[in-house]
Formats: sequence, structure tokens, C-alpha cells
Amino acid sequence: MYKLVLVRHGESEWNKSNLFTGWTDVDLSEKGVQEAKEAGILLKEEKFVFDVAFTSYLKRAIKTLYFVLDAMNLLWIPTHKTWQLNERHYGALQGLSKLTTAQKYGEEQVLLWRRSYDVLPPALTKEDERYPRNDVKYKDVPDQFIPLSESLKETIVRVEDYWEREIKPQILAGKKVIISAHGNSLRALIKYLDNLSAEEIIDLNIPTGTPLVYTLDDQLKPLEKYYLGSERRVEHKIEKAADPDKIME
Amino acid sequence: MYKLVLVRHGESEWNKSNLFTGWTDVDLSEKGVQEAKEAGILLKEEKFVFDVAFTSYLKRAIKTLYFVLDAMNLLWIPTHKTWQLNERHYGALQGLSKLTTAQKYGEEQVLLWRRSYDVLPPALTKEDERYPRNDVKYKDVPDQFIPLSESLKETIVRVEDYWEREIKPQILAGKKVIISAHGNSLRALIKYLDNLSAEEIIDLNIPTGTPLVYTLDDQLKPLEKYYLGSERRVEHKIEKAADPDKIME
Repeated sequence: MYKLVLVRHGESEWNKSNLFTGWTDVDLSEKGVQEAKEAGILLKEEKFVFDVAFTSYLKRAIKTLYFVLDAMNLLWIPTHKTWQLNERHYGALQGLSKLTTAQKYGEEQVLLWRRSYDVLPPALTKEDERYPRNDVKYKDVPDQFIPLSESLKETIVRVEDYWEREIKPQILAGKKVIISAHGNSLRALIKYLDNLSAEEIIDLNIPTGTPLVYTLDDQLKPLEKYYLGSERRVEHKIEKAADPDKIME
Repeated sequence: MYKLVLVRHGESEWNKSNLFTGWTDVDLSEKGVQEAKEAGILLKEEKFVFDVAFTSYLKRAIKTLYFVLDAMNLLWIPTHKTWQLNERHYGALQGLSKLTTAQKYGEEQVLLWRRSYDVLPPALTKEDERYPRNDVKYKDVPDQFIPLSESLKETIVRVEDYWEREIKPQILAGKKVIISAHGNSLRALIKYLDNLSAEEIIDLNIPTGTPLVYTLDDQLKPLEKYYLGSERRVEHKIEKAADPDKIME
């Protein structure tokens, strides 16, 4: 039997102002920091301990992990950072507001991009300053993996690849793992673990700053799954994550 | 030609109250956090960039690194944490104040422990709660490396071993390295790099929160070495680090 904990980062500056974020490396808001600290306190109170941590290349997830581990007195554990756990890349929508996008492309199209499985948002050009090849973070990532835009489907492919190669072996070696990541990279993991269909995963809303605890059997099939925290707090956070007017990805 | 940057952690809660710290995992003070942020801003202003970071298992060094990398927008780089970069283990002195120690053992003896190369402070017993074997952090460290007390000499042995195995290969591979550590683990590195004698390294005082920049040749021999920051700020910090009445280790 294994334990695995997933945490979605707290509110970022762009969540606050309702902009498409994707791979844009925006900071946590003050409230986001608070959410991360609370997640750490919850885990500490419930006597969780971790041996190894995984997170993305994006500071909102890295910082969330930092505040969680600090609250748990676990800053010393090995922490692996990877672009493969990044948020879904939102292509040319990154940096646009909900309103601008709806005015430009129509409400229905925006909903399709946000809530479909394999529809790609408009692609960046390679000349765009938002193209990840222009960011030193991704200098060691081979060209074929640098996205111009991603659907949830593409996000899932890169997350599952990393899960298979890096995370799964650690869990099977008996290491207690925590993963701090993003709405869509966590969807990828949950789809895999819970064996969900494309339709089911699209409808799943993951609350921010709320540890999701899995108990897994020897084959890594879930035996139990629950969010940590009071029922009321968790429900409130799920409702917020499901709000179609609020962009959090 | 290679660049290497060393940073000593900022003021900790126990530096403030003048207690022997060693492997005790105390937090940074508010001032220590500020020192770390300033070091990061200095490095950013001077356009430094790093590919990989090393630090100890102790949160005052881990947090210093975090604030430095955050200021530099480099939180995503790989960070390796190791017990081998920990502060010198101060044995049974850990947690005692300068005053208590001087009253118990005499001023001269205290100075000998703090400023000699190979004199061991009084050892812990294995039953002592301060014995590192009782701390989950060190569960994977083999028994023969768990100290009951260390002189500077022993500290140097473990730091040099880690340098040879883990840090040096990265520098020779062209990676730009930053190391956030402690007064005595940094002394070990400086003794090695500058080829200093036991006497010379004892007299060397490293200012807190002040990046020490090395330019190294192909054989990793220093070509140049300087502290980053205004001359006045650096001198003030070196004086503080040299104050015999102030325990900072």
C-alpha cells in the first residue's frame, strides 16, 4: 500500500486578474501564499511525512511546494523540478483576459478551448516572445517537445511520460511522494490514476491549495482518495475551481 | 574559465541569541531573510546566472538559497541538498550560550574550540536527543558519518569529499554553480580552492549574505576572488563575522 499526495498551487497574480496563464511564470498572490501555508499546516496536523517532492518549472507551483514543506519542517527532502509537470500551454491566449478572448473569438469558442479534451487553442508563432524556446528555462528541452499550444490531450502525454519514468519508480520503491503542480497537469495524473475517460476528466475541478490524498495498492490502483480539510472548506474551493467565469489555468 | 559563487546564510534565530548552533535546524531571523534577499538582488543586478545550486540539509541555508534564487528568477534550477555541506557539528555545545559555556569551561577553552583546527568540542552521547541519528533527515547517512562532535578538520573531510564527487564534475561540465552553506562548510571549500594552511583558514571570517565570487582556471585554480557589494557593506559584514563575542556557527 502506498500514499501519494497532490496539491494544486494557490491563487496566482493572473488568476486574480482573470488572465490565461499557461506557461507564463507568474508569481503567487498573497492569498496564494496563504493557501500554500494552510495546505502545509493541514498535512503537518495529519502527521503526513514525505521522502521526495516533484514540481514544475513554474514558480507558482515551486513556491507552493516551498511553503508546504516549510510548514512541515521538510525543506531538506529532495525536490525534482520538470517542465513536464507545467500547466497546459495556452498558446496565443496566454496573457489575454477572459473578456478580451470572448470579444475576439466568442464565448462559445472560449469555452470549447477551456473545456474540451483535444481542441488546440490558437498557436504561437516561433517569433512570439511567449514561445518557450526564448526562455532559458527550456534550453535543455528538445525542440519536438516545445509547444506552440496544447490541448489537455497533449498535456496528458507529457505528464504521463514523466510519471512513468520518474515518479512511479519512486513510489514503487516505497518513497512517500508529494506533487505540487497545476490544474491541468494534475488532471493528467488523476485521469491516469482513476482511469477516467476524456469526458470525465474535463468535468473534474481540482480545488487550489487543498492536498488530495491517494491510497494506492501494489499495482498503484486507488483504494481510497480524499481531500484534506473540513468538508465546508473543500466544497467551497471546488465550487470556485468550477466557476466558468474564473480563469485559473 | 569557470565562475563559482558561495553564499553564507543570513542571521539565524540562534545567531541572534548567541547560542552554539551547529546541526541544530534553526530558522533564519527576519534580518537573515532580508540579507538573503539582498544577496539575490546583488547577483541579479550584476547579471549572474546559475545552472545548478547546492545547499545543506539545514533550513537556514536552504531558505537563504530560496530567497537568492527567487530574487534572480531562478527558482526552477536543479537544487541538490546534502548533510555534507552542513555547519560543523558542535557536539554537546549545541544549544548552549556563549556565557553558559564560558562559565562552565572557561573563556580560553571556548576560544580553543571555536578557533582551533583539530580540537573536538565535548561529544554528544548516543542517547542525547541532539544525536543526529535521532533526526529523520539523516536516516540514509551511514553510521560512521554521523558525528558526535566535529573539529574544523572533520568538517573539511566531508565537505571535500562532496566537492570532489558532486560539485567539481558539474563545474568542469561547464555548469554555473552557486553554493549556499555555513561558516565552517564554506571555510572548507575556501581552504581547498585557495590552498590555505590550517592556520590561515582559522583566521578567515566569511561575511553573511554576501556572495563570494570565484573565477577559476581550467584546473579550478582561482584567478580572481571578490565579495559582491559595496566595499563599506562588505567590510562591515566581515567585522561582524570576526567578532569573538558573537557566536555565528
